[in-house]
Amino acid sequence: MRTLKLTLAYDGTPFVGWQRQAQGVSIQGLLEEALARLEAAPVTVHGAGRTDAGVHALGQVASAHMTALHPVDVIARALNASLPPEVRVTGVEEAADGFHARFSAHAKTYRYVIRNAPAASPFERAYVWHIQDALDRDAMRDAAAAIVGTHDFAAFRSVGGDVTTTTRTVTASGFAPQDDPGLLTYEITGDGFLRHMVRAIVGTLVEVGRGQRPASSMAAVLAGRNRAEAGATAPPQGLFLVRVVYD
Amino acid sequence: MRTLKLTLAYDGTPFVGWQRQAQGVSIQGLLEEALARLEAAPVTVHGAGRTDAGVHALGQVASAHMTALHPVDVIARALNASLPPEVRVTGVEEAADGFHARFSAHAKTYRYVIRNAPAASPFERAYVWHIQDALDRDAMRDAAAAIVGTHDFAAFRSVGGDVTTTTRTVTASGFAPQDDPGLLTYEITGDGFLRHMVRAIVGTLVEVGRGQRPASSMAAVLAGRNRAEAGATAPPQGLFLVRVVYD
Repeated sequence: MRTLKLTLAYDGTPFVGWQRQAQGVSIQGLLEEALARLEAAPVTVHGAGRTDAGVHALGQVASAHMTALHPVDVIARALNASLPPEVRVTGVEEAADGFHARFSAHAKTYRYVIRNAPAASPFERAYVWHIQDALDRDAMRDAAAAIVGTHDFAAFRSVGGDVTTTTRTVTASGFAPQDDPGLLTYEITGDGFLRHMVRAIVGTLVEVGRGQRPASSMAAVLAGRNRAEAGATAPPQGLFLVRVVYD
Repeated sequence: MRTLKLTLAYDGTPFVGWQRQAQGVSIQGLLEEALARLEAAPVTVHGAGRTDAGVHALGQVASAHMTALHPVDVIARALNASLPPEVRVTGVEEAADGFHARFSAHAKTYRYVIRNAPAASPFERAYVWHIQDALDRDAMRDAAAAIVGTHDFAAFRSVGGDVTTTTRTVTASGFAPQDDPGLLTYEITGDGFLRHMVRAIVGTLVEVGRGQRPASSMAAVLAGRNRAEAGATAPPQGLFLVRVVYD
């Protein structure tokens, strides 16, 4: 039995999310079907991040066990030939026994893109959160920095995940420099993320940007561990799983 | 009666094209419906370029006559509030009596984008022609240059347009410099374009790039005035109407 590490990019717009569901098309389901054709038997894949409906990936990672002996580049070509164009396999590698896309991951980086302008281009509507109101970017930057560290993120999650602890370590949280003045690109790196955590953080940062709460309130929201004290969950289409880091 | 000049950007993916049709959603139809709500009466709009199904616009121009007295910025906001996000009005201006988006136009620029790489990103699939084969870019550049000038473009059109002459003047035809080595961006400017003319030219340039015909054959194809001698029509999703120039 070989273990494979697959790297994927996908446009999440038409899917119910990464995870297989009773109804609708999932990226996990598509990948499992495509691998099963090569294996001539059912294959289960595990994804590093269970992205929600409408959330995108530039570098999702999945692991799978297979007996089929095809070289990795043949597997990559075969998968891309059978997957829809919204999902592309950008790499297939042999991995060590015991490699698991989710449990072996050390860190993940997510990006959230906001178009802060009177109008959003029709070409980016599925890839940004369009906000017309003026945003105080200095306050948002200060609020974003307050997230860095090991914290109990209970205030920034939706119920429904199968987690035993809500403590996570965020090693980077801030806005990337942009040539385009109307674009805000927030990036966050951490050892793990709770359900809707990035979108709840972004929703709270936007409330700071709108002046609805002070930047200094982030620490109090974290300490309060109460979802109702944080901001609304940002919409899915601005979110990208950028990369997953392993040893 | 006032005359309005409207500038629009749209993602052509979900539409039957610019022109109103018996079946399906057209950009012209959507714009006429949105203007009719402001006018409280039917409104006819004329577009500078009748883009086909799946073809995009960064700067389409339309003209309309109206009696409603709303300021132009109010009209722009009202249109954007009622149009779907795939269509955005980027400008509304008062135009001189007799202004007609198509007949007053001096020049139009179209862009055609080719992704020449083993894989296309899932985020650009609706906006490029993905070609995996190696392309000889020097030969394509030479072939593109041969199009400049006043020619009978009968070899590069599909039947069905309501034109009286197939002679057009192309003032620029070439590939724009790109930071991204896998991207080929062809731009063509002319005083008018026949039906499928840009896509037939691009299809022929790609056959040159693949070595299926020499760059020098472009002149012979033009002279032959025979559609069968030119290359296949390139797919619609790589094509953008970039801008329309008036006096």
